[in-house]
Amino acid sequence: MAKLYHVPLSPFCRKVRLSLAEKKIECELAEERYWEQDPDFLRRNPAGKVPVLKIDGKTMSESTAICEYLEEKYPEPALMPKSADARYEVRRLVSWFDDKFHSEVTSKLLYERVNKKVMGQGFPDSRNVKDGAKAIKYHLDYMAWLLDHRRWLAGDVMTLADFAAAAHLSSLDYISDVDWNRSEVVKDWYAKIKSRPAFRRILADQVSGFPPPAHYADLDF
Amino acid sequence: MAKLYHVPLSPFCRKVRLSLAEKKIECELAEERYWEQDPDFLRRNPAGKVPVLKIDGKTMSESTAICEYLEEKYPEPALMPKSADARYEVRRLVSWFDDKFHSEVTSKLLYERVNKKVMGQGFPDSRNVKDGAKAIKYHLDYMAWLLDHRRWLAGDVMTLADFAAAAHLSSLDYISDVDWNRSEVVKDWYAKIKSRPAFRRILADQVSGFPPPAHYADLDF
Repeated sequence: MAKLYHVPLSPFCRKVRLSLAEKKIECELAEERYWEQDPDFLRRNPAGKVPVLKIDGKTMSESTAICEYLEEKYPEPALMPKSADARYEVRRLVSWFDDKFHSEVTSKLLYERVNKKVMGQGFPDSRNVKDGAKAIKYHLDYMAWLLDHRRWLAGDVMTLADFAAAAHLSSLDYISDVDWNRSEVVKDWYAKIKSRPAFRRILADQVSGFPPPAHYADLDF
Repeated sequence: MAKLYHVPLSPFCRKVRLSLAEKKIECELAEERYWEQDPDFLRRNPAGKVPVLKIDGKTMSESTAICEYLEEKYPEPALMPKSADARYEVRRLVSWFDDKFHSEVTSKLLYERVNKKVMGQGFPDSRNVKDGAKAIKYHLDYMAWLLDHRRWLAGDVMTLADFAAAAHLSSLDYISDVDWNRSEVVKDWYAKIKSRPAFRRILADQVSGFPPPAHYADLDF
C-alpha cells in the first residue's frame, strides 16, 4: 500500500491526499514532524519537507511533481484535461495557489497562527496576520471572477486546480480564516468540492491544541 | 512572433527563454519593470510578475505552466523524457531549483545584491547574503552527487531540470556568486549547457549598473 508522510493542515499534503483519494489509491497516512529534522526522514527526502509519498517502490517528494506522476500513472478519474491549452490553465492555477496564494495568504495566516505554535517558534506576527487577512479577500474575489465564467476554477470540469485551491482554503477554514459570505459562487464551489468522498478524510483531521470549529466538517456550512 | 515580457536576470524568465530557444521558437524580448505595477502589464498578468509570454494568440504566466505548455505544443526537441518515472524526476528537480534553491540561495544573493538596488529598496541584508553564500555550497554538492551518477541532472538526457538549474546558476554567475572550483562535475555540466546555441542570448545580457564579470560569457571559464 502507498504511504504518505504528511502534516494534517499542510495544503501541499492535502493536494496530494485529495488526488490519491479521488483516484481511489489506498494510502496509509503517517504524521511527520519534519521540522524536527529526523535523520530517517531526511534520508527519505533531502529537501526535508512534506509531503513524501512512498508508492510503486519509490519515495517521492514535491507535491506538484507527485500529482503529475499520479495523473500519468493512474489516469482515471482524470484531474487534468486533454488539450494543451486547458492543461496550461490548470497548471497556471495550481502555481497561483501554491506560490502566490501560499506566500500572500497561507503563510501569513496558517503558519503564523498554527505552525509557529506547533513548531515552538513563538507568537504570531500581527502584521503578517493582518496582511494575510487583507490578501485573502482579493484572492476570493479572483476566484469569484473565475467562477462567474466557469463551473470549476480552470474550466467546465473539476481538475487539480480545484484541489490545489481547496487544499489551501480547507486548511484556512480549519482556523476559521475564510469568510464564506464574501462570495456566493465561491461558497457554492467549496460546498460542491467539500461533499466529494475524496474530501472526507480531510474533514476528519484533528490538530492537537487546535480543535476545528463546528462548521469545518459541516457540509451545510 | 511570440513575445516574452521578462527581466534579464530572473531565473524563471531564463528557464522559459532557454526552452523557447532550444525549441527554436522565435521570440521578441521586452523588458518589464513589473515592480512598477504598470496597469497595462497587470492586465496582461494579474499575478503581477514575469515571465509573461504571448504566444499562439494567448497571454501566459507562471514559468512552469508555460514550459509544460511549450513541451506539449512544440514537442521537438524534447525537454521531458517519456516515462512517468523519468518525468517525475525532471519535475521534482525543477521544483527543487524553483522553490528550495530559489528561497535558500537566489533570493538571498541575487535579490539582495541586484533586485533591491534596481527596485530602489535599499541595501543588501548581510545576514541574508551570508546565508545564501553558505547554502549554495550545499546545493552545488547535491548537484555534484546527482552528476556523479548521471550525465545530466535528471538522467542521461538533457531536460527542463537542467534548464531550471542553469537559469538560477547563470543569474548568480552574472554577479560572480558561483564557485566553479567547488566541483569538477558541476563545472563540466555547466560548460556543456553554456555552450549550447540556446544559451547565447542569455550570455549577452547586460544589466545597467551591473557589468558582468569577464568569465560570465566565456565558454572556457
